[in-house]
Amino acid sequence: MTNLLTRPQAETTAPAAATTPHRVVIIGGGFGGLYAAQALGRAHVDVTLIDRRNFHLFQPLLYQVATGGLSPGDIASPLRAVLKHQDNTQVLLGDVVDIDPDAQQVLLKRGQAVPYDSLIIATGGAHHYFGNDHWEKLAPSIKTVEDALEVRRRIFLAFEAAEKETDPEQRQALMTFLVAGGGPTGVELAGALADLAYSTLKQDFRAIDTDATRIILVEGMDRLLPPFPPELSAHAEAALKKQRVEVRTKTLVTSIEGDRVRLRSGDEETELRTKTVLWAAGVKASAMGRIIADRTGSDCDRAGRVIVEADLSLPNHANIFVVGDLAHYAHQGGQPLPGVAPVAMQQGKYVAKLIQHRLKAEPIPPFYYRDAGSLAVIGRNAAVVNFNWLKLTGFPAWVIWLFVHIFYLIEFDNKVVVMTQWMWGYFTRNQGSRLITGRDVDKVEAAYTDAS
Amino acid sequence: MTNLLTRPQAETTAPAAATTPHRVVIIGGGFGGLYAAQALGRAHVDVTLIDRRNFHLFQPLLYQVATGGLSPGDIASPLRAVLKHQDNTQVLLGDVVDIDPDAQQVLLKRGQAVPYDSLIIATGGAHHYFGNDHWEKLAPSIKTVEDALEVRRRIFLAFEAAEKETDPEQRQALMTFLVAGGGPTGVELAGALADLAYSTLKQDFRAIDTDATRIILVEGMDRLLPPFPPELSAHAEAALKKQRVEVRTKTLVTSIEGDRVRLRSGDEETELRTKTVLWAAGVKASAMGRIIADRTGSDCDRAGRVIVEADLSLPNHANIFVVGDLAHYAHQGGQPLPGVAPVAMQQGKYVAKLIQHRLKAEPIPPFYYRDAGSLAVIGRNAAVVNFNWLKLTGFPAWVIWLFVHIFYLIEFDNKVVVMTQWMWGYFTRNQGSRLITGRDVDKVEAAYTDAS
Repeated sequence: MTNLLTRPQAETTAPAAATTPHRVVIIGGGFGGLYAAQALGRAHVDVTLIDRRNFHLFQPLLYQVATGGLSPGDIASPLRAVLKHQDNTQVLLGDVVDIDPDAQQVLLKRGQAVPYDSLIIATGGAHHYFGNDHWEKLAPSIKTVEDALEVRRRIFLAFEAAEKETDPEQRQALMTFLVAGGGPTGVELAGALADLAYSTLKQDFRAIDTDATRIILVEGMDRLLPPFPPELSAHAEAALKKQRVEVRTKTLVTSIEGDRVRLRSGDEETELRTKTVLWAAGVKASAMGRIIADRTGSDCDRAGRVIVEADLSLPNHANIFVVGDLAHYAHQGGQPLPGVAPVAMQQGKYVAKLIQHRLKAEPIPPFYYRDAGSLAVIGRNAAVVNFNWLKLTGFPAWVIWLFVHIFYLIEFDNKVVVMTQWMWGYFTRNQGSRLITGRDVDKVEAAYTDAS
Repeated sequence: MTNLLTRPQAETTAPAAATTPHRVVIIGGGFGGLYAAQALGRAHVDVTLIDRRNFHLFQPLLYQVATGGLSPGDIASPLRAVLKHQDNTQVLLGDVVDIDPDAQQVLLKRGQAVPYDSLIIATGGAHHYFGNDHWEKLAPSIKTVEDALEVRRRIFLAFEAAEKETDPEQRQALMTFLVAGGGPTGVELAGALADLAYSTLKQDFRAIDTDATRIILVEGMDRLLPPFPPELSAHAEAALKKQRVEVRTKTLVTSIEGDRVRLRSGDEETELRTKTVLWAAGVKASAMGRIIADRTGSDCDRAGRVIVEADLSLPNHANIFVVGDLAHYAHQGGQPLPGVAPVAMQQGKYVAKLIQHRLKAEPIPPFYYRDAGSLAVIGRNAAVVNFNWLKLTGFPAWVIWLFVHIFYLIEFDNKVVVMTQWMWGYFTRNQGSRLITGRDVDKVEAAYTDAS
């Protein structure tokens, strides 16, 4: 076992102290972990940020990578680049397989141990197939860059295969897209697919008419965007229908077999032929939740999220914190906080502040989430915004959506020009990032072509 | 077998003719094939462009994708988008496995046949390991987007693994990069690696000092950039040495085993420990060359290129043309034309013109390549340009290199803003496209970590 915290070249801008600095280890470089690391940048602590990936991913725009509007590089920032000026911070590429609260260390896949004084766990969520894990291959979700590129491959290969297909029924199955889940991601995906099929690709094919594309969005609840106020849900549904998306609420996917999908709405079962099912229906906590529960005796909720104290620490383990999508925080009125970026950001910053105050033995009040509102985009020029005190729809909401996303995206990294390019492409309907890539393109293509 | 040329929705802007239009099939959407397709855009012919990929790739900048300066989407344009306004042109995603000159059709992988009257084959080249094909896995080349992403993964994982490595010898092996081949690609790669190690990543790590990185460029001939005039070769070598690249001419790679590479220089053999070997040493024709030779009785040269007539057609098959890197064209002074983009572009346009003239029974003179000069870049702010009448080096050459590349890159697609972003990043040394991606990241990482 190797102790990784030997830093021959570490410089420190903090005044030389008699004691070794307090060691903060952060697992996960998403919104929660990265904001915590940044908030500790000038503190007299040693920070180690561990992530399986070498970049921070701006997940809210990942659906744009999946639909060909953006490249992965446009919404990812190398963690090392973001944190390069923080001399007290080391980034490690590593897969955390276990934590040991007694020895106060984190264990990496290849047997390395990283010791900590305070530990912040921010490993986020994974997609959730509600007991149908075998659907993962049949109906990919969009959580990682690879997921998004896989979805992109499937969408564009479906159109390519349709262009070559001569059987009308097969062709229609290739040109039918089912999006399961009517939350923000599902709504965004369905809207982006409508833009793609009915405008971007309109002139691209010769044998098929992309106007014949069917996009079906199913949601188990009685309305889209369940976390939003009902009038915004109604607006989103109307906006999607105007874009020719078929919206089916109170509908569940009951089986996916080959290109046949069964849907149940009340007592009624219908079958649909589609080659492309995209999953936006459920999110659960990452596997780390289980490990934390086992090692610390903490409780998890049904989605696998760790139930945390009012200061985001674990019961009986005051120096271990869980933030972001992995945390179940219900100290603010019963309902746990939603798994959205602003919660993770505020929690990350809070824990960073708490650790610094604790080192000075100063107490701080419990975490409190300041809800600035929520947004969801419904294709080009349409969105819904809920500021609580103000609800907006349509073009004004879309402009706000755009600026909020650009603002957060450029915070870490100078992506202004990329974002300008993307906005330009969005307006001109010219989406340049439609590459079908990956070593297994041929295998995927075979699936789209041979089965038909 | 399905005839794909049923186009229910094809419109034609050409005047209604009594006869069916002449069918031109183009295999390959690289520089040769795409320029041919574009030059036929207003002709009264039916054009079908077949490619295995759905995009045109600007290969001259692919080394930038490999070293994290650009995203694949920045240098790729969807073929359908480029050709969408050409109503006489259909794009097909397909893998051509055979041609049948008697039946005048091209056969795709899944048994489909595409009939032609004239056939243009422009499938380009592949990398060449000179009989050591098992080196392909050990020392990847950069020909496709996937190759470039694989090389990117290896480069950045090597630094990540070095940051975690405690054994000094292993660490140095991880921080040693060998580039095999001193042609333009090898020189560009070595220069980009030097930029990366000695400036971009300088502040990114804590346990390692990237200044300790070794970059070794080996070339079998007695000078770098053999196709350039000797004084430019000498300049390139001096410029690379100034950037701390170790240049070894008259040196061959004789074995690659694990992290040990053997080099031979004259009678002297040396061994080097490196985890990352990049192959830029050889190019051969794509596998299509063999198929053409078998089916038409044409001859291939030693690199597998098809020896073509003075009008780029095949002997005995006046309606089959081979252009670009796949063609061996020696009607212009003995030496075959080099495998560079300008040759392919001019050949593609020439064949398009020839076909149109032939339909009017007008003869045109043989193909003649107008050599406007050649360029190679040697890292930031340095390049060599040979205009024949003028030779340039250093910063002026680099500016010309930059503008020529941007000019050609934006020709098909509005990538002005992306290119501005890239130039900006290039100047500010902030390379944002350093994502390590791919489903097999863990496998690759294991190779970098476990073996050490």
